[in-house]
Amino acid sequence: MPNVKRIGVLTGGGDSPGINAALRAIVRRAAAAGLEVVGFRDGWKGVIEDDVVPLGLADVSGILPVGGTILGTSRTNPFIKEGKEWKPTPKVDRILETVKTRKVDALIPIGGDDTLGVAHRLASHGVRAVGIPQTIDNDVAGTDYCLGFHSALAVVTDALDKLHTTAHAHHRVLIVEVMGRDSGWIALVGGIAGGADVILVPEEPFSVHDVGKAIEHRLESGRRFSIIVVAEGARPVELGGKPVAQEGRVDQFGHPQLGGVGYWLAGELEKKGLPLTPRVTVLAYLQRGGVATPFDRMLATRFGAAAVEFVLAGKHDVMTGLRGHDVVAVPLAEVLAQSPKPVAREFLALARNIGVR
Amino acid sequence: MPNVKRIGVLTGGGDSPGINAALRAIVRRAAAAGLEVVGFRDGWKGVIEDDVVPLGLADVSGILPVGGTILGTSRTNPFIKEGKEWKPTPKVDRILETVKTRKVDALIPIGGDDTLGVAHRLASHGVRAVGIPQTIDNDVAGTDYCLGFHSALAVVTDALDKLHTTAHAHHRVLIVEVMGRDSGWIALVGGIAGGADVILVPEEPFSVHDVGKAIEHRLESGRRFSIIVVAEGARPVELGGKPVAQEGRVDQFGHPQLGGVGYWLAGELEKKGLPLTPRVTVLAYLQRGGVATPFDRMLATRFGAAAVEFVLAGKHDVMTGLRGHDVVAVPLAEVLAQSPKPVAREFLALARNIGVR
Amino acid sequence: MPNVKRIGVLTGGGDSPGINAALRAIVRRAAAAGLEVVGFRDGWKGVIEDDVVPLGLADVSGILPVGGTILGTSRTNPFIKEGKEWKPTPKVDRILETVKTRKVDALIPIGGDDTLGVAHRLASHGVRAVGIPQTIDNDVAGTDYCLGFHSALAVVTDALDKLHTTAHAHHRVLIVEVMGRDSGWIALVGGIAGGADVILVPEEPFSVHDVGKAIEHRLESGRRFSIIVVAEGARPVELGGKPVAQEGRVDQFGHPQLGGVGYWLAGELEKKGLPLTPRVTVLAYLQRGGVATPFDRMLATRFGAAAVEFVLAGKHDVMTGLRGHDVVAVPLAEVLAQSPKPVAREFLALARNIGVR
Amino acid sequence: MPNVKRIGVLTGGGDSPGINAALRAIVRRAAAAGLEVVGFRDGWKGVIEDDVVPLGLADVSGILPVGGTILGTSRTNPFIKEGKEWKPTPKVDRILETVKTRKVDALIPIGGDDTLGVAHRLASHGVRAVGIPQTIDNDVAGTDYCLGFHSALAVVTDALDKLHTTAHAHHRVLIVEVMGRDSGWIALVGGIAGGADVILVPEEPFSVHDVGKAIEHRLESGRRFSIIVVAEGARPVELGGKPVAQEGRVDQFGHPQLGGVGYWLAGELEKKGLPLTPRVTVLAYLQRGGVATPFDRMLATRFGAAAVEFVLAGKHDVMTGLRGHDVVAVPLAEVLAQSPKPVAREFLALARNIGVR
Repeated sequence: MPNVKRIGVLTGGGDSPGINAALRAIVRRAAAAGLEVVGFRDGWKGVIEDDVVPLGLADVSGILPVGGTILGTSRTNPFIKEGKEWKPTPKVDRILETVKTRKVDALIPIGGDDTLGVAHRLASHGVRAVGIPQTIDNDVAGTDYCLGFHSALAVVTDALDKLHTTAHAHHRVLIVEVMGRDSGWIALVGGIAGGADVILVPEEPFSVHDVGKAIEHRLESGRRFSIIVVAEGARPVELGGKPVAQEGRVDQFGHPQLGGVGYWLAGELEKKGLPLTPRVTVLAYLQRGGVATPFDRMLATRFGAAAVEFVLAGKHDVMTGLRGHDVVAVPLAEVLAQSPKPVAREFLALARNIGVR
Repeated sequence: MPNVKRIGVLTGGGDSPGINAALRAIVRRAAAAGLEVVGFRDGWKGVIEDDVVPLGLADVSGILPVGGTILGTSRTNPFIKEGKEWKPTPKVDRILETVKTRKVDALIPIGGDDTLGVAHRLASHGVRAVGIPQTIDNDVAGTDYCLGFHSALAVVTDALDKLHTTAHAHHRVLIVEVMGRDSGWIALVGGIAGGADVILVPEEPFSVHDVGKAIEHRLESGRRFSIIVVAEGARPVELGGKPVAQEGRVDQFGHPQLGGVGYWLAGELEKKGLPLTPRVTVLAYLQRGGVATPFDRMLATRFGAAAVEFVLAGKHDVMTGLRGHDVVAVPLAEVLAQSPKPVAREFLALARNIGVR
Repeated sequence: MPNVKRIGVLTGGGDSPGINAALRAIVRRAAAAGLEVVGFRDGWKGVIEDDVVPLGLADVSGILPVGGTILGTSRTNPFIKEGKEWKPTPKVDRILETVKTRKVDALIPIGGDDTLGVAHRLASHGVRAVGIPQTIDNDVAGTDYCLGFHSALAVVTDALDKLHTTAHAHHRVLIVEVMGRDSGWIALVGGIAGGADVILVPEEPFSVHDVGKAIEHRLESGRRFSIIVVAEGARPVELGGKPVAQEGRVDQFGHPQLGGVGYWLAGELEKKGLPLTPRVTVLAYLQRGGVATPFDRMLATRFGAAAVEFVLAGKHDVMTGLRGHDVVAVPLAEVLAQSPKPVAREFLALARNIGVR
Repeated sequence: MPNVKRIGVLTGGGDSPGINAALRAIVRRAAAAGLEVVGFRDGWKGVIEDDVVPLGLADVSGILPVGGTILGTSRTNPFIKEGKEWKPTPKVDRILETVKTRKVDALIPIGGDDTLGVAHRLASHGVRAVGIPQTIDNDVAGTDYCLGFHSALAVVTDALDKLHTTAHAHHRVLIVEVMGRDSGWIALVGGIAGGADVILVPEEPFSVHDVGKAIEHRLESGRRFSIIVVAEGARPVELGGKPVAQEGRVDQFGHPQLGGVGYWLAGELEKKGLPLTPRVTVLAYLQRGGVATPFDRMLATRFGAAAVEFVLAGKHDVMTGLRGHDVVAVPLAEVLAQSPKPVAREFLALARNIGVR
């Protein structure tokens, strides 16, 4: 059993509303165990640059419902990918230095596979860490759900509820573009929960022809509006399966346009001469905002407390994972080998089985 | 494999925001499988009285986010408890008659252990049923979560968020009474998610002395407000463990006052002369209202679709249960033997470990 | 034109979600005019006790949507009422001392008629002040609306929306007790906005007989639920108009029970043997919580900026008042003479004219 | 005083959440006065095509909080503009025919200046109408506020609240594009209420240079994020005031891109090499969705009841207008002469005075 006195926490990658709840749980659980907690600002950047703040009970008071992260975040990575290998940069030495001089016995990094991957690679340099999977994309493997996913769903679902009444009143096709470059978790579960008529995910290429058919089919059965949820990374193909030329996916300034597939689809549907005018809503960073749902607050509290307990139990190079009712320690090696986790096939089947295209 | 052509659905017991989402999923899944669906009004009452409505795709259009139940609900039970035995009343024959004349091949009752218990007892009378566990109390065993629980949590959490700022500004003790006559699920998980300072559940008797101490302890450490979440069924005991005389729990008109423990506690705390004035909020039926959270909408959709699939697969005398990522068929006998399910011990431990009394 | 360099602000009485937005506007408007701002903690108590904090742009950053007040509040009053006269206590001298030593050229007190009344009486002692009317009760005269009123309405309306679906599903009478000891603004406007069937306000005594009739009338026309909004200060009378004995309005511990009229009414309706069970929700402090509505945020911003401008223009012994589209300076003497402002007769007439009892 | 027996209502133009509340009030107020109400579907289209539905108390039960319009809407106009003149088309005769055969004594059209303009021009053909101004754009003159405006503000404000935490955590420039082709009401009031740092409205051309300066200025004072609210109709100019060439405002398919100014601005800011990455959210039809705020519900109820009362009082060729606390009858000629109403200059001044660019 290690002699743990001080824990360092950091938050990396894209934020979500549950992070502060996790920080609060870590500090409160650590306080109950007589441990000190320090925070590093802006993800791994703060460890590299020794940018540290004390985190006591007073510092986490009142932050439970507040979105974002009181520590700030960044995408700084002290390793660099060469081919399939990750190589350390000199920043790794600075991390080791900070951990040593700050007398941090273990780190709790909170983030997605990028942030957690750093923790795993630091293990071979002697850094002990217990990660917490947090990403609205829900694509970290080894856990039923990542922290933040359900809060992002709440934004998408609320948006779809708002759009339903106006789509109905105006007889429109409303296209809602949501986050998800590589995985369709938000689009699929958000779309099912919000009652979308068509859901387009990166895992399954789509053709404009099929989308048009689905809308026409609804029209024929008297439903004079349709709501389409499209992940930003959804990939259009031609009828034979050939990818649609990507020039349609750059914006008018020539740079690749993530966030453009919704407008692109609207343009294509308009060209087909549907009797319903398509209109586009781009939720973008709204999906990172708002208050955490009860599910995420409970998950954050459980993950935060469990991370401290795993540290106390001498576990490291692991992350907290939800498995059914239990929170377990999942080896990071296993997590990273299986991430990004594609959207569940049974959820795709569910959508099709209840008549969503 | 049974030759299924028509399914009958009904909703019993207390309502919650996810029911309509489940009805929608049942109808859409059934439509995809070529089945007809009829609805019975007001729970088992509708089957007894042959009060039936057709449920087609148009009937469930637009109901996904709407709370309550389009079928209505009641607590009518065709069996009567004598000692520990449930005996059929003549209403059972009327149910058998309705099922026969309406050519209903299987029933999907949606509700808590009372509603599902009827389904189980009807099995020995030859009625085939697949239940869906729905209760904001979350006390049906055999499933990680019951439909409606997370939506009720959302109301409690939102209330606690609202109260925090005003408690802080006014230096008050705010007492929030929530539902839960026998189980503390809503109080405990809602309280943790909403950052309550004291949580009182039926499973663990409390003393006013300890509650007062917790508030004083907070005062001494500079926190001039406290938020107490108390389940309506929480039971006060004297210091030695003796139950507090129940006359304090009737209202001023002499009838037993469920919903009174919050006011009772406020009175007792005031008698102790705390420097903070206690104020009471009684959420009551608010907890059944509002829109379903994404978690509950997804759960409702999965439960609804799975119930139809279980019917098609010839399963009966079972209910849909969430086990980790999977929805499984759980024998009703097993469910009823273990219900009501008390609040998870590890969640109680979690609360204590992060400093909640 | 006075030579103003420093403004002092304070927040007194019950809080509401718009206060912080007003503080932010005051500080930002003052900064643009080159003025300093200091805050006094906990209302007039902070001025008496010289409990002061600097308020710069950084201090008000991020507080716009946060409920409560960063300055804290209290009901401390340095005057004491003898008969109809307000007499100064020694605390008044301490206020004069603080104002002098802190070099505060003008005060901006934010609160209801109690808080603003102090400002008016201090005028004759040479203290210059421009008040901002803030109370969820909306009963300060001289302004179309008080800050906080619309945010409280949002809580009431949201609660009524939540209750409608469950009332409908369960065939119940739901009673919602809202704030308003002397005035029915919240009950009346919240009740109209939330679609209540019966609204009971302090300005118009009610009889249980009439309430029962209204519910029965709805039942007869097929509407098997009713929602009653009752202000905490609503006064029951017997059929002839005689006030109902007040013992029914104390709680079981013998102290007068504000917040008890809802339970009292439920008991009386139950005695009448209505076929619908009444259930009570007590919103209480929820009505002070949550985020400010856009209306209140705009009003707070306008009032805050105008208060600074009135100070700069040499106005004092006034408050900011909304009159149609304009924000004007209203003499406090006039305001106090007409407060508390009863609920608008035309709004009562509106309710009756659309079939609300 | 006319002998009124039957009123016809219709809803035209873009929808907003308050419409159904107004329909409900009209029907309930009419019922109290013994009048019948019929509804025409899809705006003036329904009158032209004699597409009519009865509207009784049961039809408007439960619609108060529901967005959209139960009658549907369209932009059909039976007049056609030739130069500055509106000329009747043959559709006007069909309207006269419908009004006659359906025995409609007066119409209550609900909508913006387009919908109300038809009512005014029909007056000279003998059609009696009392309009209700409804548009989220708030640009109908003659009323302090149009129905729907505050509900749209609520969506914008909520979005800005959500974005603040993530902008802060990520050090980003977040651009939010809101509705408003010709007027900046939503952008300006929504931006002030949501704490935007930069607000761009159609009424005041902007230069990218100035926007960049404002962001840099914030960066220099330590605020590492900025939130920009831009109306879809905001017009960029070069430094000398020359309009920016419009080709930047078409999408990649060549058709004019309303809804494109946000992306355009992001591209321009990126070209300037700001250290903060801009990200775009397009609220689009979200602004028409959601539940009506209490302000709008009350306004809808007052406008609806007043419209019936004005009809009964023999007023016509007018609309309901809010003037301070009062609802008055405003001649449509006057309304149309002053519409579209530009954003209030004093609100623009307010924004500047509290440090918003």
